[in-house]
Amino acid sequence: MVVELISVGTELLLGNIVNTNAQYLAEQCALLGMSMYSQTVVGDNKNRLAEAFRTALKRSDIVILTGGLGPTEDDLTKEVCAEVMGIPLVDDPHTRERLRAYFEGSIYKEIPENNWKQAQVPAGAKVLDNDNGTAPGLIMEKFGKSAILLPGPPDELHPLFQEQVVPYLRALRPEYIFSRMVKICGVGESAVEDKLLDLIDQQTNPTIATYAKIGEVHVRVTARAADEEEAKKLIKPVVKEIRSRLGDNVYSVQEGETLEMAVVGLLKKHGLTVTTAESCTGGLLAGRLVNVPGASEVFREGFITYANKAKRKRLDVSKSTLKKYGAVSEQTAREMAMGGVFATDADVCVAVTGIAGPDSDGDKPVGLVYIACYMDEKVRVEQYQFRGNRAKIREQSVVKALDLLRRTILDSDRGK
Amino acid sequence: MVVELISVGTELLLGNIVNTNAQYLAEQCALLGMSMYSQTVVGDNKNRLAEAFRTALKRSDIVILTGGLGPTEDDLTKEVCAEVMGIPLVDDPHTRERLRAYFEGSIYKEIPENNWKQAQVPAGAKVLDNDNGTAPGLIMEKFGKSAILLPGPPDELHPLFQEQVVPYLRALRPEYIFSRMVKICGVGESAVEDKLLDLIDQQTNPTIATYAKIGEVHVRVTARAADEEEAKKLIKPVVKEIRSRLGDNVYSVQEGETLEMAVVGLLKKHGLTVTTAESCTGGLLAGRLVNVPGASEVFREGFITYANKAKRKRLDVSKSTLKKYGAVSEQTAREMAMGGVFATDADVCVAVTGIAGPDSDGDKPVGLVYIACYMDEKVRVEQYQFRGNRAKIREQSVVKALDLLRRTILDSDRGK
Repeated sequence: MVVELISVGTELLLGNIVNTNAQYLAEQCALLGMSMYSQTVVGDNKNRLAEAFRTALKRSDIVILTGGLGPTEDDLTKEVCAEVMGIPLVDDPHTRERLRAYFEGSIYKEIPENNWKQAQVPAGAKVLDNDNGTAPGLIMEKFGKSAILLPGPPDELHPLFQEQVVPYLRALRPEYIFSRMVKICGVGESAVEDKLLDLIDQQTNPTIATYAKIGEVHVRVTARAADEEEAKKLIKPVVKEIRSRLGDNVYSVQEGETLEMAVVGLLKKHGLTVTTAESCTGGLLAGRLVNVPGASEVFREGFITYANKAKRKRLDVSKSTLKKYGAVSEQTAREMAMGGVFATDADVCVAVTGIAGPDSDGDKPVGLVYIACYMDEKVRVEQYQFRGNRAKIREQSVVKALDLLRRTILDSDRGK
Repeated sequence: MVVELISVGTELLLGNIVNTNAQYLAEQCALLGMSMYSQTVVGDNKNRLAEAFRTALKRSDIVILTGGLGPTEDDLTKEVCAEVMGIPLVDDPHTRERLRAYFEGSIYKEIPENNWKQAQVPAGAKVLDNDNGTAPGLIMEKFGKSAILLPGPPDELHPLFQEQVVPYLRALRPEYIFSRMVKICGVGESAVEDKLLDLIDQQTNPTIATYAKIGEVHVRVTARAADEEEAKKLIKPVVKEIRSRLGDNVYSVQEGETLEMAVVGLLKKHGLTVTTAESCTGGLLAGRLVNVPGASEVFREGFITYANKAKRKRLDVSKSTLKKYGAVSEQTAREMAMGGVFATDADVCVAVTGIAGPDSDGDKPVGLVYIACYMDEKVRVEQYQFRGNRAKIREQSVVKALDLLRRTILDSDRGK
């Protein structure tokens, strides 16, 4: 089944916003096992939208359109699609009533006249109630094709899609598609492929695909079956085999679990607290741990010691170490990690010091980063030579620091 | 002059990555005064890419393609475009020599055989040297149309575009387009529009447009003229008028200057150093300051005091304040900011404490954030009630904290 996307909105053509909806919908459709060969962006222009929609209907089974469902005159996705499919617009009392209820008790004294336009729907269309806005989603079917019209704001689009479009798309297919993501840190994409090559080559159901992320590799295992239970049964041994081949490099097989969520979960599981000692990352490492709701249980404070003086004062890095080896050195990283534990009541400290650029530091090159982790009176230090600009070097450093923290816990006596 | 984009890459169709290149290029083309009516994404598929490219060549003067210039068999943008335009590929000794030099001194002992493919260029094409990767950019011209092929990685694409494509596009136009961005913080988009309404309505050259960003509003002033000097002359009085109407809310009129760059610049100008005291933002505020190369001159260390105990120990927030008013309160924010200055040798401290959610804290709602700034024995505290999820609340907090720091310096005796 072939699906394609049309994003409607002049703000996309002007580069005012990034098209995150396309990424979201593409990922969701891939998870459902659908094929996508094309995505298009058009502005709020009747003729060009009609042309793009006609082309899409010809080559795809399902066309998902986002944006252009608002109450203004610029919003014409519904009108254009209905016209192209030859379906008249009719008043929908259900949507009219929902609109009335939405505005009642809102800051508006009365309903803006143009909002009533949103109660008009293509005759026979499935109306998808939108609990987070005034534009309902719409599904039109004709000639064996489906057009799915969704509002553009992501906080309206995502719940509508998950709750109402996913079941619709699942029902269109004779088979059930289910996939699981195995998330890996600490080995590169080609090494992962090498280790899984025979699996990737042999498997037809489930299929296996690898994706490179910054500092991570994700492996998606996708099965097709008659129902969910059977699909899961097909996936289970494959995921198990991947885990056994990649060992501790696998940090998660849970949908939606990020590296920082896995790390915070591991800390919680072992009743450990962590502190951070950051130089070049300047707070981004702690910032990622705090991404996780409830991080306060395992993270109480962190240090940003950008200057040497701060490294000495807060983390007790010795003057002679800084003088002899420099701030970006294995020795300094080691002392930072130790110092973080001693300065707090945390069980573990992960420390980062490096040269993010653009300028190098004497004979030390841009991208040189040391990451240390101290726990149970032992310290582990890793040296990296990252490539890329300042932002990329710092981002990679954060991923490697989170991963070193994870491995230190796993390899410790407590982790076993 | 009409330009359109084709992004090439199966990873976009699978939703593995967000198409930030499309946003970047669309914004850049708008800055150059070009019209864009369409953007397309296709996978690494010969026939579909050829079809998309043919369609684009028919309806647009310039087609910019990104991605698919790598050394693997999947990478076929150059091959397909050259074939569609009827231009043969030839060996380019200059690019071959650059490839050789690139791999010399790299971790590779010898040059991977398939990389030589990147030395093949369409006959007569302009070759755009890529200092950040192995794939050069390429410009092909035929039938009065231009195809511009650029590598997909943003850190290769951006410098190539700025340094080599912008001058090329400028030279294609009979008139010179120049624009300047006025960046504003501390007033909402509709308030900015209200203040500039007569200007926006009256002006035809330069034109004025507003854009809402997270915590910021950007106003773009665009002039068309015979040459750069004349365009700048048209823009100057309009920018001056906008500045006079918006006063200190304008933080930059420099191309590419971010809020953190403006803040670090202001600190440098006045010879001030800053420290940070963060709770809910958990390091993201310091992380943004450190985005700026050379931030070490003004930022030496920062505190992440997530737990109450850390607020007391590091920043000397009093136990009774925390007990009486709670961690998320005006009083705690005030003491955090004061404590940051007293604990360090910094001149200024900006502090953030708030509830990022998803859970509220007793009767205090999610999104409640206090931001304080201490300088010259005075402290300023602001209370915010942000909307959105955890990430958005933290992001808005960081912007407001940077802006409060900026205003505190501007309003101080030193800033005057």
